[in-house]
Amino acid sequence: MRAAVWHGAKDVRVEDVPVREPGPGEVTIAVAYCGICGSDLHEYADGPHAIPVGEPHPESGVRAPIVLGHEFCGTVTGLGEGVTGLAPGDRVAVEPHYRCGTCPRCLAGEYNICRHFGFAGLMGHGGLAERATVPAYMLHRLPEAVPLEQAAVFEPAAVALHAVRRAGIREGDTVAVLGLGPIGLLVARFAARAGAGRVVAADRSPARLELARRLGAEAGDDLAEAVGGEGADVVFEAVGSQDTLRACLAATRRGGRVVFLGLTGTVSLDAFALVNNEQTIVTSVGYRDVYPELIRMVAEEGEDLAAIVTATIPLEDVVSDGFEALLRGQEQVKVLVRPGGGASGGGDGRRRP
Amino acid sequence: MRAAVWHGAKDVRVEDVPVREPGPGEVTIAVAYCGICGSDLHEYADGPHAIPVGEPHPESGVRAPIVLGHEFCGTVTGLGEGVTGLAPGDRVAVEPHYRCGTCPRCLAGEYNICRHFGFAGLMGHGGLAERATVPAYMLHRLPEAVPLEQAAVFEPAAVALHAVRRAGIREGDTVAVLGLGPIGLLVARFAARAGAGRVVAADRSPARLELARRLGAEAGDDLAEAVGGEGADVVFEAVGSQDTLRACLAATRRGGRVVFLGLTGTVSLDAFALVNNEQTIVTSVGYRDVYPELIRMVAEEGEDLAAIVTATIPLEDVVSDGFEALLRGQEQVKVLVRPGGGASGGGDGRRRP
Ligand SMILES: [Zn+2]
Ligand SMILES: [Zn+2]
Ligand SMILES: [Zn+2]
Ligand SMILES: [Zn+2]
Repeated sequence: MRAAVWHGAKDVRVEDVPVREPGPGEVTIAVAYCGICGSDLHEYADGPHAIPVGEPHPESGVRAPIVLGHEFCGTVTGLGEGVTGLAPGDRVAVEPHYRCGTCPRCLAGEYNICRHFGFAGLMGHGGLAERATVPAYMLHRLPEAVPLEQAAVFEPAAVALHAVRRAGIREGDTVAVLGLGPIGLLVARFAARAGAGRVVAADRSPARLELARRLGAEAGDDLAEAVGGEGADVVFEAVGSQDTLRACLAATRRGGRVVFLGLTGTVSLDAFALVNNEQTIVTSVGYRDVYPELIRMVAEEGEDLAAIVTATIPLEDVVSDGFEALLRGQEQVKVLVRPGGGASGGGDGRRRP
Repeated sequence: MRAAVWHGAKDVRVEDVPVREPGPGEVTIAVAYCGICGSDLHEYADGPHAIPVGEPHPESGVRAPIVLGHEFCGTVTGLGEGVTGLAPGDRVAVEPHYRCGTCPRCLAGEYNICRHFGFAGLMGHGGLAERATVPAYMLHRLPEAVPLEQAAVFEPAAVALHAVRRAGIREGDTVAVLGLGPIGLLVARFAARAGAGRVVAADRSPARLELARRLGAEAGDDLAEAVGGEGADVVFEAVGSQDTLRACLAATRRGGRVVFLGLTGTVSLDAFALVNNEQTIVTSVGYRDVYPELIRMVAEEGEDLAAIVTATIPLEDVVSDGFEALLRGQEQVKVLVRPGGGASGGGDGRRRP
């Protein structure tokens, strides 16, 4: 089969690799869509960051070269020994978190912070390929009412929904989001669903601000100015830099919360101001127990998560029209790859009756 | 009357100042005890930090020279116009937070983060004096069952109790405290009351570790080692330095919380680890709505908050036996000053029948 394989920074090759037969507890799926994520881009631009290049990852048993892609969905084609509750032809969304099942966090149900934290498509083989073989526990069967075009964005939607849950938004809160990539846009959407009285979105890109407005948020290029007054009750930092962190804290009211979503590296923080303003820093990584809610909101409420999709491309073009296009600028938000060509796609991402 | 007046760093003078008559809404009290706080020490050592030396504080209307001391209690001697519910002879604890009453946080009941944040004894005249005149809203009348020796430590106890409330400790949690000054010791005590399964206290001072053990905590000089295993559910940072902050984060489990109590200045933080471990940074400043609970736990449950008191001294010796002794070393934990001499004191800080 064809697959996009990470060999090193700026060295992702679409090449032939064997389809891996499903072992005990595993399932093989024909991939319908696989989104390209900011973390994939990181690995492409100047990785490895999360990709194991020395020791294999303890859960996947795999190290580079690795098939990229963790935002995928598709149709079951093969079942390994002992898998129950799934059948060939079932349409499934993949929740790509590995979990050991035995560490204290897994036992507490907090598998997103498992000791062996990792994702298929980064720490193990992923979905930028015609077929993917993953542990059965990663799969959620989709009801008829959920098209694969919507399931294609469940993974970034899961990140956003988990962050919104972590934030503890209260009815009527003013919520702000800095950074309108796919996650930031979905956070804005879910904050409104969670009862926020105002949702204010900020970014430098006019196109992304326009998209945020279409999703129902107020939008502006200066966060503090767009928020106004005493500051927001909750501010999401969805860019991941020292400067944007500072801007987020400045736009948070006394007693408010800042949610770190994408921060990496070392940051410096005015602890005196943080404590005197009694602000809380909440962090959010991955997700847990959110896929059922995503399925429900699409199936029962017609939520259009795929509104953030700006392009759908074939697997062969993933480097030029995917990674390179995303590195060049912000005209794209979410790019989906369709490894199976035209077979499984539906077009505009909306539900078909 | 005699009062300890801050004129500048290393320049606190015990001198004669006039007793200020209570204005409308104010009350004058004869001070029974006034504790010396870490923040007083800061102002003495290398202030001004919080003391206004330029513009007067908007709520107190006062600037330096200022009567120090915010941890005080005493007996009402005079009432200003319009004060109700108090009478001369009433014993009272002082909750020294100023509050404007009109800003969004005050209106939300979060007066500890009032726009005009401040304390009597730092931003206005305080209780290291024979008499103190303060707004009536700062006073809590003490029932018979609460001796002034216990009320003398209500202020640091309030800081600790508010922090424990902010931390959201759950039944059975492992809770750790780094830094066993008065606040850290009381946090350890209140964490146990809040349902912690284990309370682990760490400090470099053997005397303070011994005191923590007497208050019911496990104690050790290395935090992570004393906590062991996966780390604590909640860790209180009660020292306030870059190194201790790092030690606290290292002793916190994945998904756990670190509570900043005393941090000042700029700190650097490994945001990557913080996010990947999904840890939360909670901050706590001052207190709100905790004095009634302190009164209740002493009156009804015989809680001995005054166990942290290691010396009681006369006002005239506040510089030599108070500030200088506390700067020299850690043999003292909480030093109380008795401005009225022997008249109101009871000795060992325990309740008398
Ligand atoms: Zn992703
Ligand atoms: Zn685990
Ligand atoms: Zn104090
Ligand atoms: Zn106020």
